Amino acid sequence: TIAFNPIDHPHRRYNPLTGQWILVSPHRAKRPWSGQDEAPATATLASYDKDCFLCPTNERISGDKNPDYVGTYVFNNDFAALMPDSPNAPVSANPLFKTQGVRGLSRVICFSPDHSKTLPELPVNKIRKVIDTWNEQIEELGKDYLWVQAFENKGAAMGCSQPHPHGQIWANSFLPNEIERKETLLKAYSEEHGSNLLMDYVQAELQDGERTVVETEHWLAVVPYWAAWPFETMLLPKTPIRRMSELTNPQRDDLALAIKKLTSRYDNLFQCSFPYSMGWHYAPFFEAGTNIDHWQLHALFYPPLLRSASVRKFMVGYEMLAESQRDLTAEQAAQKLRDVSDIHYLES
Amino acid sequence: TIAFNPIDHPHRRYNPLTGQWILVSPHRAKRPWSGQDEAPATATLASYDKDCFLCPTNERISGDKNPDYVGTYVFNNDFAALMPDSPNAPVSANPLFKTQGVRGLSRVICFSPDHSKTLPELPVNKIRKVIDTWNEQIEELGKDYLWVQAFENKGAAMGCSQPHPHGQIWANSFLPNEIERKETLLKAYSEEHGSNLLMDYVQAELQDGERTVVETEHWLAVVPYWAAWPFETMLLPKTPIRRMSELTNPQRDDLALAIKKLTSRYDNLFQCSFPYSMGWHYAPFFEAGTNIDHWQLHALFYPPLLRSASVRKFMVGYEMLAESQRDLTAEQAAQKLRDVSDIHYLES
Ligand SMILES: O=P(O)(O)O[C@H]1O[C@H](CO)[C@@H](O)[C@H](O)[C@H]1O
Ligand SMILES: O=P(O)(O)O[C@H]1O[C@H](CO)[C@@H](O)[C@H](O)[C@H]1O
Repeated sequence: TIAFNPIDHPHRRYNPLTGQWILVSPHRAKRPWSGQDEAPATATLASYDKDCFLCPTNERISGDKNPDYVGTYVFNNDFAALMPDSPNAPVSANPLFKTQGVRGLSRVICFSPDHSKTLPELPVNKIRKVIDTWNEQIEELGKDYLWVQAFENKGAAMGCSQPHPHGQIWANSFLPNEIERKETLLKAYSEEHGSNLLMDYVQAELQDGERTVVETEHWLAVVPYWAAWPFETMLLPKTPIRRMSELTNPQRDDLALAIKKLTSRYDNLFQCSFPYSMGWHYAPFFEAGTNIDHWQLHALFYPPLLRSASVRKFMVGYEMLAESQRDLTAEQAAQKLRDVSDIHYLES
Repeated sequence: TIAFNPIDHPHRRYNPLTGQWILVSPHRAKRPWSGQDEAPATATLASYDKDCFLCPTNERISGDKNPDYVGTYVFNNDFAALMPDSPNAPVSANPLFKTQGVRGLSRVICFSPDHSKTLPELPVNKIRKVIDTWNEQIEELGKDYLWVQAFENKGAAMGCSQPHPHGQIWANSFLPNEIERKETLLKAYSEEHGSNLLMDYVQAELQDGERTVVETEHWLAVVPYWAAWPFETMLLPKTPIRRMSELTNPQRDDLALAIKKLTSRYDNLFQCSFPYSMGWHYAPFFEAGTNIDHWQLHALFYPPLLRSASVRKFMVGYEMLAESQRDLTAEQAAQKLRDVSDIHYLES
């Protein structure tokens, strides 16, 4: 019998943060593609666009006018998915028709006044401003809401409705599915092993190195062992940090650098503005006194591209009905991201 | 205080088949869209394309030549995600690096020799042939594999790499995530309530009618109460059927009719070939004697379109990191699908 080899043999890997398996089919990247092409994001935008809802001094759909802002700029989403004062839903006796009333709000964070500069193209000190804004927003909304999801949809392929570089914050009166599941699994691991799952994972990856994409003084970015998206990464501090507010100043500066390097490697891979959805997970805002030591702050990057600037991975039929499937190993993906420079191709 | 109203107030609904919640934001469909447009699938194709890998008599990438088939045609996928003879993976001592060896295979089912005819455009007796092929394949592969996933990715927006109408079958030596979760939840419901979850659900929906899209003699298609995708539907027989092989001949004929009507309503909604991923769930092929009475055969349709033939729903940042979100209620979606004809716009 042949010996198992992860580069030749289909296998599943287990994601201990979601409790889900991922099917890895490492030999499949060779199949022909005559499906949908994405429009590769290589156009150069002007630094100001008079028709953009997010540029300084412009008017938004709501009639509000943006100030002539210089750093980041935050406002309440004019089409929020949540409302701060929604009534509770009546309780249904039938377990098949369960409804829950929710409260929340959505905000938009413009990363910079410059219409043309995505995160990797901003200087490190401006990325630091974005980090400070994330932190302020999370802390402020965490006073009123159990969960605050900070995220960015970058690029048309990831449903971004607006090219002006921006992220979003959705605050929730409830724990969303993904956070509730993570809370349960992180807690169970800590009870079983007496240690923090993600701290154990960081240690293992620092020793191994095969999945490392970026390492700075305080931060590590890896393609997780259980990655589902082709070039998915996780970015974590090397020391225990339960929430963003616990980061020291040097850790924040270094995070800006780590983001600059990671997103530059992404753009360099296919020489385009690399689309992704990214966001932060950390300890929810439970009542004071609740134990949150099983948490560790981390960012997740989910980029859709697979083979080139225009061919993405589709998570469709089998993936929706059965289980996530990927076409190269996490180690192969990390190698490709390490093989390109961490200086952005437009800046080198 | 205002009374709760599902059409005005954001709320969550619980999916008892997955154990996940869905955030419903019914007021959000009004926001402006300057994001990605899909190319609407309205082109008329020729009934034979000499460059198509799936048309009769053509040569495939593998060098194999398709026969001059007349009904459906099944072959092993030339770029299968699974292999029948993969070795087992070694067991890891570290719970953070869990790997599992898998066996399986992938097949392609051409629905008809006609390159230009999608499911809704085929006559009912030809759709019946597709049903018979699904059933034969599932029964054959079920002898060797625990799970057999039959599915179709329709349209470029759903990652279909080939316009010739076809579906796929992936057979697995393991229970994929979605099936394992469903097995657990269906079993728990049956133990708690002494009845079959999906049979209880069919009864409730037959009485209510607000979410009904198509009803035939033996079948019901509804937008499930907990739908995540805008026009998601579930298609079920009205009587207990654990696997496709249990269907009677009249139930199979009637299924062909129900599929014709449902997919015609889809195409009619935005007057285009409506993209979707669809597939079948039913009792896995456990060892003989295992109780599977908590199962009920059902098809799931996940279409991405939201507002028009070119504007889709993106399940991205918040959805990937927190929880699925939809922009109209299940009842509103069902109403829109009921408001169009069940005769295909190209045939009327
Ligand atoms: O097998 P195909 O049609 O080439 O590929 C399509 O369906 C597969 C199964 O859902 C997916 O893994 C692929 O991402 C998708 O492009
Ligand atoms: O809020 P936006 O940017 O208009 O919308 C985008 O992000 C949201 C949150 O992930 C998604 O629900 C939308 O489908 C997507 O298009």
